[in-house]
Amino acid sequence: MSGDVLQHTDLRQSRRFLETYSPPKINGEFAGKHIISVEQFDRRDLQILFDATGSIRRRIKQQDRGLLELAAGKLMATLFYEASTRTDLSFQAAMRHLGGEVVAASNGVHFSSVYKGENLADTIRAVGCYSDAIVLRHPDVGSSYEAAYYLDQLNKQIARQVIVISGGDGVGEHPTQALLDLFTIFDFKGQIDGLNITLVGDLRHGRTVHSLAKLIARYQAENVVLNLVSPPLLRMPETVVQYATAKGITVRETDDLYDVLPETDVIYWTRIQEERFDDPADYEAIKDRFIMTPPVLAQAPDDAILMHPLPRKHEMGTPDDHDALDADPRAVYFRQMENGMFVRMALLAKVLGGLWV
Amino acid sequence: MSGDVLQHTDLRQSRRFLETYSPPKINGEFAGKHIISVEQFDRRDLQILFDATGSIRRRIKQQDRGLLELAAGKLMATLFYEASTRTDLSFQAAMRHLGGEVVAASNGVHFSSVYKGENLADTIRAVGCYSDAIVLRHPDVGSSYEAAYYLDQLNKQIARQVIVISGGDGVGEHPTQALLDLFTIFDFKGQIDGLNITLVGDLRHGRTVHSLAKLIARYQAENVVLNLVSPPLLRMPETVVQYATAKGITVRETDDLYDVLPETDVIYWTRIQEERFDDPADYEAIKDRFIMTPPVLAQAPDDAILMHPLPRKHEMGTPDDHDALDADPRAVYFRQMENGMFVRMALLAKVLGGLWV
Amino acid sequence: MSGDVLQHTDLRQSRRFLETYSPPKINGEFAGKHIISVEQFDRRDLQILFDATGSIRRRIKQQDRGLLELAAGKLMATLFYEASTRTDLSFQAAMRHLGGEVVAASNGVHFSSVYKGENLADTIRAVGCYSDAIVLRHPDVGSSYEAAYYLDQLNKQIARQVIVISGGDGVGEHPTQALLDLFTIFDFKGQIDGLNITLVGDLRHGRTVHSLAKLIARYQAENVVLNLVSPPLLRMPETVVQYATAKGITVRETDDLYDVLPETDVIYWTRIQEERFDDPADYEAIKDRFIMTPPVLAQAPDDAILMHPLPRKHEMGTPDDHDALDADPRAVYFRQMENGMFVRMALLAKVLGGLWV
Repeated sequence: MSGDVLQHTDLRQSRRFLETYSPPKINGEFAGKHIISVEQFDRRDLQILFDATGSIRRRIKQQDRGLLELAAGKLMATLFYEASTRTDLSFQAAMRHLGGEVVAASNGVHFSSVYKGENLADTIRAVGCYSDAIVLRHPDVGSSYEAAYYLDQLNKQIARQVIVISGGDGVGEHPTQALLDLFTIFDFKGQIDGLNITLVGDLRHGRTVHSLAKLIARYQAENVVLNLVSPPLLRMPETVVQYATAKGITVRETDDLYDVLPETDVIYWTRIQEERFDDPADYEAIKDRFIMTPPVLAQAPDDAILMHPLPRKHEMGTPDDHDALDADPRAVYFRQMENGMFVRMALLAKVLGGLWV
Repeated sequence: MSGDVLQHTDLRQSRRFLETYSPPKINGEFAGKHIISVEQFDRRDLQILFDATGSIRRRIKQQDRGLLELAAGKLMATLFYEASTRTDLSFQAAMRHLGGEVVAASNGVHFSSVYKGENLADTIRAVGCYSDAIVLRHPDVGSSYEAAYYLDQLNKQIARQVIVISGGDGVGEHPTQALLDLFTIFDFKGQIDGLNITLVGDLRHGRTVHSLAKLIARYQAENVVLNLVSPPLLRMPETVVQYATAKGITVRETDDLYDVLPETDVIYWTRIQEERFDDPADYEAIKDRFIMTPPVLAQAPDDAILMHPLPRKHEMGTPDDHDALDADPRAVYFRQMENGMFVRMALLAKVLGGLWV
Repeated sequence: MSGDVLQHTDLRQSRRFLETYSPPKINGEFAGKHIISVEQFDRRDLQILFDATGSIRRRIKQQDRGLLELAAGKLMATLFYEASTRTDLSFQAAMRHLGGEVVAASNGVHFSSVYKGENLADTIRAVGCYSDAIVLRHPDVGSSYEAAYYLDQLNKQIARQVIVISGGDGVGEHPTQALLDLFTIFDFKGQIDGLNITLVGDLRHGRTVHSLAKLIARYQAENVVLNLVSPPLLRMPETVVQYATAKGITVRETDDLYDVLPETDVIYWTRIQEERFDDPADYEAIKDRFIMTPPVLAQAPDDAILMHPLPRKHEMGTPDDHDALDADPRAVYFRQMENGMFVRMALLAKVLGGLWV
């Protein structure tokens, strides 16, 4: 080792914490628990969370200032090792609507240079010295597990309970995105049981669709059909498909949207990135079949909903297509985004709740 | 269209919203209205706003904590596509002094890379999903009009009233700067009617002086003389001169400050940038006549005031000149800057006021 | 002078304010005073501050929401001309735990481009127009003195009392770091009198150890032995050694840790940077003697404490060494960091206290 650069062999591997650290199951009790995986939740936990989300949304619309008591005196830090302005903003707005305070322990893209090579184990504890909850966004799979492990060590020393909430770790999980997606389905369709749900796009690399598929499975919904629509090259990983199938979900894989569109209740649209293809010709051959436009949506049932994790680009056509889609009552992606704040409010209130309130 | 880059022909043109979107007139009622142009205000609106500003300043000085109720539970987002630290800071401080919360949806210069090509129409709505008011700074003329249009669409869906306040759009308008400038004149001189007001510097490109000239006109002050002092190359645009003249203001254009300095009540000083001149010799020929120093100020009346939008550089000479000018009681630019926060507090309280309070 | 670039000869020299501006002595009364040097404090001031710090920590642990009244309605701005995420975060968290508000007037490394060459004298006053306290981090020695001088000028104009707190100025002082370090010693050892304190590492360039040594001297502790352990090239500046000696402290300088380790009560560890050495061979020759690992700590007394200003890197060995050290009850550096927030809370409450509370 020389100078200020740690050699690679000295670095802890975040990924190994995936094996050695077990995220705490919620089991109906959220207070003081890290939120780092959808695997922590079962159907009852999700129902508790969604009930709380609905209640919080109602109170926001009624301008109930009692909400400002739910996290008063609590401090949430955002620690983002890569930029994700929307996730950052959604968490910040959630915490502030609960009367809590927020400090930004990072500024996105420039973060790496700021801490000059300090490792995550130390940084997470440093931030933990000042805060009650830390929202962590990190490019390495397993980083939120590592953060949870080291916060557990810190908590013993400082006699407080600092928790970490994953804001996405690399190609791993993004649990709160899955929670808001499932809540949105529940919100518009009234239930999950019996639904025909279609995920479209790059299902191979899309963290969002992996987490959502897993969470639908964890909800143990009955009679759910999950359609997975992607180019052959970009199919859902087999592990996720097996996870869903093992929980009783009927999975159908296809590369033709029109096979499933007419009977779908929920369309979840995502982007396919050209750079995933080694040969540009492969991309050119399939891209037009993965663009949502008004004529495509016309073939969906009248009571279907069209979701998208946003931001969107050409996978919803031109700006004029955007405008036309936005005017369709089936397009719910902006309300889906708004729900993100409500779900995060419910989650923050619950995990922080056992401490001061 | 290929990859992640939208082709130029697909981009919406912010500028066309200038023609198609009509900013709502205030007409004595601020609640729920976007603030994107000085054209929304008339004399009565300005009097209401300035009364509120005076009241808020008094309450701040008296340390009246009731101010913290005026925006409690409200969330303001700052969305800056270009850096403007002072405007950002002034709005943030204003909102926080009203007990409201602030989230930064951007970090200035790096913003463009953060949203990876998402268009303004989507970004403004995404931010609107989480907030009650958005302060938008954007390099494109008309962008605040476009933002207002798309927020109107969003508001229908989410059954809330999210408003945008322009923090400056390109060479277009910067309405809150004009409001604080006019308030400062009113504050020190007690009225606008009958004043002799002198604007100095690059009047061609200066958004600040355009908006101020227009706002003086909208106030419909009587017997105002507006002196426009600039190099011939950098004269005020004819449209602005006509706008003022049509409202009864006497406009005098000159390139010699001493023509007007001895009888002026208000001196508004701005910088001339060398890069505006194709030929450096042209700049060299005029620059010394546009530097404010203690000997220049000595020729102004004893009860004149010297304003400047800040930051200042060589247009007020050396740091020693700065120190000497600062010690002159006629130099009011720091109090002008402080007034900026008070005006923005009054404006925020008023536009947010109809919702929760 | 031409264009937008001020020539060097026009720039004010921050350093000269070190001679011309006298930081106000605390003398038992903190309200409204700038905090820019450890020289402002004497033993009684430190005792007052440490009592308040202990009280605040107790109230935080008891979740006493009365703390949120201590800075309610007050606004603290952070103005960082260089990145220091921890100091920034610690001050922000401190202010928010007191119920006060925070605005960031800078974003670290990019700051210089943001204000486009405006000088410190103007920027500090601009920020002062909006805030009650400014935390200033700046690479130039004397910059906090210059800031204090110009805020005094502004305060006359705006009839308020805006104060500056130094967050570190170049190789000059970092007073709040010294305060938290001394508090931590006091906290774990119950007193300063009679202690054997060992500072290790690059004592020549380390601002942290200079300020701590001076503050120990200002506390006028009795029977203190101060061991200074460094390579000969990196010895503590003679001025600091004389300062301590003049106050009755016994100073011992050595390059061999084991000379002093067995009888030391407090070990303060810092990093040696390879780039300080002209000849890499010189660095190689000494570096192994300045790495703290479990076998080294094993030779310290059982009731010693191991401090570090953090972040740490190879000066505490490998990540595995970090883990082993962290598990040793003598390692107090994370609680030292947490104390930083408590000390800053006490300081902010006291300097702001005379105004609104």
